Amino acid sequence: MTLKVGIVGAAGFAGVELVRLLSRHPHFDLRVITSNSDEGQSISSLYPALKGVCDLPLSSHDDPAVAACDVVFTATPHTVSMNMAPGLLGKGITVIDLSADYRLKDVATYEQWYGVEHTSADLLTTAAFGLPEITGDELTTAHERYAQGNPVLVACAGCYPTATSLAAYPAIDLSQGVVVVDAISGVTGAGRSATSRTHFCSANENFEAYGVAHHRHTPEIEQILGIKDRLVFTPHLAPASRGLLSTVTLQLNDEACSLSAHDIYARYVAAYEGKPFVDVLPLGEMPKTSSVVGTNRAHVGIALNEKTHCLIAVGAIDNLAKGAAGQAVQCANIACGFSEDAGLTTTALPV
Amino acid sequence: MTLKVGIVGAAGFAGVELVRLLSRHPHFDLRVITSNSDEGQSISSLYPALKGVCDLPLSSHDDPAVAACDVVFTATPHTVSMNMAPGLLGKGITVIDLSADYRLKDVATYEQWYGVEHTSADLLTTAAFGLPEITGDELTTAHERYAQGNPVLVACAGCYPTATSLAAYPAIDLSQGVVVVDAISGVTGAGRSATSRTHFCSANENFEAYGVAHHRHTPEIEQILGIKDRLVFTPHLAPASRGLLSTVTLQLNDEACSLSAHDIYARYVAAYEGKPFVDVLPLGEMPKTSSVVGTNRAHVGIALNEKTHCLIAVGAIDNLAKGAAGQAVQCANIACGFSEDAGLTTTALPV
Amino acid sequence: MTLKVGIVGAAGFAGVELVRLLSRHPHFDLRVITSNSDEGQSISSLYPALKGVCDLPLSSHDDPAVAACDVVFTATPHTVSMNMAPGLLGKGITVIDLSADYRLKDVATYEQWYGVEHTSADLLTTAAFGLPEITGDELTTAHERYAQGNPVLVACAGCYPTATSLAAYPAIDLSQGVVVVDAISGVTGAGRSATSRTHFCSANENFEAYGVAHHRHTPEIEQILGIKDRLVFTPHLAPASRGLLSTVTLQLNDEACSLSAHDIYARYVAAYEGKPFVDVLPLGEMPKTSSVVGTNRAHVGIALNEKTHCLIAVGAIDNLAKGAAGQAVQCANIACGFSEDAGLTTTALPV
Amino acid sequence: MTLKVGIVGAAGFAGVELVRLLSRHPHFDLRVITSNSDEGQSISSLYPALKGVCDLPLSSHDDPAVAACDVVFTATPHTVSMNMAPGLLGKGITVIDLSADYRLKDVATYEQWYGVEHTSADLLTTAAFGLPEITGDELTTAHERYAQGNPVLVACAGCYPTATSLAAYPAIDLSQGVVVVDAISGVTGAGRSATSRTHFCSANENFEAYGVAHHRHTPEIEQILGIKDRLVFTPHLAPASRGLLSTVTLQLNDEACSLSAHDIYARYVAAYEGKPFVDVLPLGEMPKTSSVVGTNRAHVGIALNEKTHCLIAVGAIDNLAKGAAGQAVQCANIACGFSEDAGLTTTALPV
Repeated sequence: MTLKVGIVGAAGFAGVELVRLLSRHPHFDLRVITSNSDEGQSISSLYPALKGVCDLPLSSHDDPAVAACDVVFTATPHTVSMNMAPGLLGKGITVIDLSADYRLKDVATYEQWYGVEHTSADLLTTAAFGLPEITGDELTTAHERYAQGNPVLVACAGCYPTATSLAAYPAIDLSQGVVVVDAISGVTGAGRSATSRTHFCSANENFEAYGVAHHRHTPEIEQILGIKDRLVFTPHLAPASRGLLSTVTLQLNDEACSLSAHDIYARYVAAYEGKPFVDVLPLGEMPKTSSVVGTNRAHVGIALNEKTHCLIAVGAIDNLAKGAAGQAVQCANIACGFSEDAGLTTTALPV
Repeated sequence: MTLKVGIVGAAGFAGVELVRLLSRHPHFDLRVITSNSDEGQSISSLYPALKGVCDLPLSSHDDPAVAACDVVFTATPHTVSMNMAPGLLGKGITVIDLSADYRLKDVATYEQWYGVEHTSADLLTTAAFGLPEITGDELTTAHERYAQGNPVLVACAGCYPTATSLAAYPAIDLSQGVVVVDAISGVTGAGRSATSRTHFCSANENFEAYGVAHHRHTPEIEQILGIKDRLVFTPHLAPASRGLLSTVTLQLNDEACSLSAHDIYARYVAAYEGKPFVDVLPLGEMPKTSSVVGTNRAHVGIALNEKTHCLIAVGAIDNLAKGAAGQAVQCANIACGFSEDAGLTTTALPV
Repeated sequence: MTLKVGIVGAAGFAGVELVRLLSRHPHFDLRVITSNSDEGQSISSLYPALKGVCDLPLSSHDDPAVAACDVVFTATPHTVSMNMAPGLLGKGITVIDLSADYRLKDVATYEQWYGVEHTSADLLTTAAFGLPEITGDELTTAHERYAQGNPVLVACAGCYPTATSLAAYPAIDLSQGVVVVDAISGVTGAGRSATSRTHFCSANENFEAYGVAHHRHTPEIEQILGIKDRLVFTPHLAPASRGLLSTVTLQLNDEACSLSAHDIYARYVAAYEGKPFVDVLPLGEMPKTSSVVGTNRAHVGIALNEKTHCLIAVGAIDNLAKGAAGQAVQCANIACGFSEDAGLTTTALPV
Repeated sequence: MTLKVGIVGAAGFAGVELVRLLSRHPHFDLRVITSNSDEGQSISSLYPALKGVCDLPLSSHDDPAVAACDVVFTATPHTVSMNMAPGLLGKGITVIDLSADYRLKDVATYEQWYGVEHTSADLLTTAAFGLPEITGDELTTAHERYAQGNPVLVACAGCYPTATSLAAYPAIDLSQGVVVVDAISGVTGAGRSATSRTHFCSANENFEAYGVAHHRHTPEIEQILGIKDRLVFTPHLAPASRGLLSTVTLQLNDEACSLSAHDIYARYVAAYEGKPFVDVLPLGEMPKTSSVVGTNRAHVGIALNEKTHCLIAVGAIDNLAKGAAGQAVQCANIACGFSEDAGLTTTALPV
């Protein structure tokens, strides 16, 4: 069975990764890709790696072909999705949103962190949060509604929240106090805009922290893990194209202090049993971002600091794949009733 | 239909790329992988990107399971293949050799450039040279012999010869005099050995020429293009993991001086029509290695320098894929009668 | 005035950085450089960047010329220094040690973390700890003893301890509970040995945590900051040659919770007033490692997370300069009574 | 003795490298730096590596302080210099121009390759060409005029012409026919503008040829080497910040065919004897760009291909230093009568 799909915002980095994945997907037939700023060009002229794979032209966001799709992926900056999603849903189209617009369940939190009014806040209660290994129930519910003929809205998790939550989730209820997250992203995380920050000669041979104490992924991580006002999140930029590593330090609570590393490890293994995209590495191994680049996989490793009773949990993903486009396809697969890994079986380059 | 295959020398960079490709191949069933230096370890412990994709253990080269295969890929340093191939062929096993041992048709040339005696020189006349877009006839012949129940030996072209020849081939008979080839390779081309040369801090932020005037790919390029003693080949190393770019400068002969860039372009288009892995870029575009990394594709671009009557032809490949493992799979596909692109349809990451 | 100096262990990365700095130093005259593994080669043949700057040959560690120096820098793995320093000091030679052998004041802690017996533990009480901005008193005392004609021993701080302590020091007495340090180093931090870990193709396009929960710089940081058993230190590797960034998250204690970011900022400015190598960046700016590479400088930035009452303090240095060779020269300058910045005024490349 | 100097166009990559060099120069006192696009900002806020080294504000190009200088460096795009230089010279100010405006002696060639009318072509005959190792006579003459109280104009050589000419010059009169130059530059060569081409994620892990058959440095190289209509010049981009490598292939003429590699090597040594910034590497060694980054040095290596009677000559420089700002300072030193290497003695980082 095949569904007609479109991508709104296909020329950005997450958008073009969607193009790559959907061009080879067994059940989604990519019909239309849009970009207001690059309208008229073919995606393969912008990204010559796609030559022969997808040579579709980019049309504007209001291309009528979008409305002829069964499923639309929106890979646009925040505020664009919240203006398009209601209309698409109204036409019976399922929307897989990669932006931040429907991720935060609490409209006040959204408006505070993003500094804009939410124009379709009513959808926040029905949007399924898209981080299947953790919010699988929401996606199951979404699929049930879809199976009954209703369009659904999925708000896919952000890149930092994905890696961080996959690393921390199985142990979060063992923790107390402040949760410290220091994460590192490759430069694709800064987006396609050519700025002094993304200039090769600025990003190369450099690493730095940014958005310290006020990055917008903070409330999203707090929501997923249920740790409101307990998070210190500091993202860093490193000189690689792709890859995201999140290092989470959790202070164990009194009960958990008696647990051994093996005890906690067993919780991780149990938490991700049967999840096709998460590998819990053996104790003693830590994830490398290069092992997951180009794939929808996450690698997770843990270590216990016994003197301080702290758990260090590290998660590695490809920020554009499991952190964006891959996860969106995974969510769409679930929502539409396909195999969770359909179109997502690429292997990372071993070297 | 499925054939049992093995890889001798699977822990090196070309070998592990074969593991990646053969683990997902529709017709080859990877049964055994060997490495004398890493015997006993699993390939995915050496290369964690393969975790869950291929967790086979590495055995030694003399593992009997090798002899139980239908097809064996040898990704070993030169001299190893020439000692193994006769025995494997004698057992009816088809051998796809990635080393230099059977590439040069002239045994004296081999012995001069490699400084060793060739111990199975009789096979040089029957080995098919594996660069399908140029030596397709040899591979067709090999397949005919294979189809009659005979094992065949394919000597896959080297990385520099592949990119260089694909760039130069359609115009080589328009040229005269010295052919100048300056090529650039990523560091995987220097192999898996950890040396001061391959140390990150030596290769990073650096480029340099090496093997100047005496690189062993010289006679191979001369053989493919039929330009004996006309080649100046200078390879360079640049700070990227994968990718190989070959820039060929051809002096046009007197007849060819009247040709326009479009005339020559038409020859390129004709030469590669129907070849699934070669894209001739439109006049005015030049190939980027990043567009082909991870794939078996080659991008070729040309430009004409009218004052000097020189053609500049540039070819880009992934040195480990079209320059090694991908090409080996392509050759095996042809030899065994499968679709030429079976198992080779991965798309490059667009960014 | 000029002193004769030598470098034991000059072929490693910290050693050769010492060669670079001492070749241009106004008061130190570099007479002898040693390396047991590269004896007989010239340093500029190993590192062609030094051609014409320093073409001295490498001799063995027991070269008698070492004993003819006024000051010897030991840039050797741990255990080498503790076997050489007593003899050198006995001959009246001042020793500036870049290894870990004399950093930890408590011999039991040393023996526990390094797993070897300390053979000259008596020197631990007299060795001055070399992190001038924090342990300046010890260096002043050392200079007084030196001025009276005594040789002195300086144990220079490690790279992670330097960046971390410079970031945390002015606020450490405002903190309580666990101190979380996530730091990122360039690959020179892994040393000159060519290993699978330092291979370009392993380190490139990758970041990862390592030594989690058991890195040997842990007790050193705890000692400098006076936070025994309060530290969680997680180092990471990123694909750059040089640079080290340390991100410290401090939980403010009850009294400090009422302080504003500006209050804390004022403490930082005061702490580093008159220190020629530390720049406290304006509130709102965070350090970039590229701004300090090649120099002995440290950039420090802070931000306050008000909801969690945590301070995030970030320090950037060049791990081979302020984190090793530069700091050693700075310490030697102080110990010998030269201007603190003699030979250390190089500017970082702006791009 | 100290001269007042200014930089017009100080915010670009060559401009800021001038700021770095002139901030530490013993005879030039940097008084004013300009940038029309970044007017009002301090150079150290744009480039934090300069913090504490040069914190001058950027003013506009028409800042009267420019006219109060003794020497002005113009590091602006072509056409800007030719509109400013006549006025500055008229006020008695010496102009060191880093742009292309006065490099080509033939105005028609300039107008053809740059596509604009030259508005001060009369200066082309008096401008000294700034590549001291080759056009030293022009600079000597300039100094004589300067010493008599006249302002002078120096047109500094471009980056590719510098590396290429230093590699080829000692052997150019041994050559015949087409000269093939394939050169590789780091990304600073593409300038400070943030474009899709200079985006980290576009330049990283990629190499490519560009400007094939029509790069503007072609006529400049032809002029320096006296090889009109004999040059095929193909520049390439590689993923490093700095560094430029030029590989020149020269067909030896009939007389030169009898020369050995040692004969030709002796010519190189003789040609650069006494030149403080050029190192001819021993036969068998080839230059690495990393050995010269951050310095005004050039490394040159040669090899002879005996079968084809071709010489391969390779030159490595830092495109922003010897290829731009360093060379400008060297030319200014000569023109003004200072030691040729004043302010230019920095050592490259050995690793």
